[in-house]
Amino acid sequence: MYELYIANKNYSSWSLRPWLLLSELGIPFDERLVSFAPGTGSSWSGFRAFSPNGKVPCLHDGDTVVWDSLAIAEYLAERHPDVWPSDSQARTWARCAVAEMHSGFGALRTHCGMNCGLRIRLPDSLPQALRADIARIDELWSEGLARFGGRFMAGNAFGAVDAFFAPVAFRIQTYGLTFGAAAGAYAQRLRELPGMRRWYADALLETWRDPDHEEEAMQSGILLEDLRTTVS
Amino acid sequence: MYELYIANKNYSSWSLRPWLLLSELGIPFDERLVSFAPGTGSSWSGFRAFSPNGKVPCLHDGDTVVWDSLAIAEYLAERHPDVWPSDSQARTWARCAVAEMHSGFGALRTHCGMNCGLRIRLPDSLPQALRADIARIDELWSEGLARFGGRFMAGNAFGAVDAFFAPVAFRIQTYGLTFGAAAGAYAQRLRELPGMRRWYADALLETWRDPDHEEEAMQSGILLEDLRTTVS
Repeated sequence: MYELYIANKNYSSWSLRPWLLLSELGIPFDERLVSFAPGTGSSWSGFRAFSPNGKVPCLHDGDTVVWDSLAIAEYLAERHPDVWPSDSQARTWARCAVAEMHSGFGALRTHCGMNCGLRIRLPDSLPQALRADIARIDELWSEGLARFGGRFMAGNAFGAVDAFFAPVAFRIQTYGLTFGAAAGAYAQRLRELPGMRRWYADALLETWRDPDHEEEAMQSGILLEDLRTTVS
Repeated sequence: MYELYIANKNYSSWSLRPWLLLSELGIPFDERLVSFAPGTGSSWSGFRAFSPNGKVPCLHDGDTVVWDSLAIAEYLAERHPDVWPSDSQARTWARCAVAEMHSGFGALRTHCGMNCGLRIRLPDSLPQALRADIARIDELWSEGLARFGGRFMAGNAFGAVDAFFAPVAFRIQTYGLTFGAAAGAYAQRLRELPGMRRWYADALLETWRDPDHEEEAMQSGILLEDLRTTVS
């Protein structure tokens, strides 16, 4: 059985990606959730007990350790169908989109960190870099939906490319980000996936709070609502 | 014939990766070098003429456009042997290391941007994040060399994982970074590859200068030497 090490569901967008991929493809795995240590951000030496670079997510398959979300996707693709589209053009496009997300969209990460349970009103005037990131994701989603003509980004079947952009669907909800009609409907479809609903419900039940992630969200705009279970 | 769009060889570490991979694996391609526009950093709307996200590198294979270095590696891997090791354990490890480089090592990028022709003396006391990046790369290289027992990171054959870390070999030379014996010898082997020597020679001949990249290097430490062709 695969073991997937992840961090807090409310915060960890990188953890969500392989977790959702495994869940939606129906691949059995044991979840190992380890909370972030306060003040260490997304990299923490304590994570090195199970992950060579001290980051989550990390997949264990017996003695084999697969760190990094994208390497996990390729590892799973060698063992399970449907991680990537079978059509070569769609697969190439999906891999490009995943790789672009994997190394990019820094402004979105900085200004709109994933925080599933909050609702934040952003200022009317957004930083140029954030607007560019949103526009590029809108463009990418719209292109995939139009070109491959399916409900998901690269066709009718959910796959790694959808998993990699799934955290954006939560960010849209938290920060009220504006997308075009096609992209907005796609984000809604992502949020309605059984795996996304489970992740979201779990995130709301978490009572542990990381000061850094909380402060980051508060600096983005005005807090409208906190839907999480009250810390007792 | 593949067409590979890249930017200036002196600066563009992302361009070097697929260029070196193609070169060392003996895969024929046409090089399309397009200079950075001053003041636009590594992303530029002008690049959108050939690359959907306005970044380099970008591979064209007939009508198929493959943007992003890592997606290019996987695209080539479907068509050519030796991009990844044939051994499953080595391949998994190599993909993890490549993915870690693809999304990480931000401090190294910020403080030690690739600038092949310069020699810079860094301050005695380096930022903690930079020291951590250097230590992690040293650890990763040493682990790969010891575990797979070859001249390269994941065995005796050069592959994508070596291509992805090749820009670090130039950074070691430019900034005098200190690595352990095994890692240092590996960096030297990288610099002696025919493709690396050709790239380096081309970089020194470039006379075009990007003010942002130049200023970034100057802010890192004290300029000792500029080995590039003098701008006429």
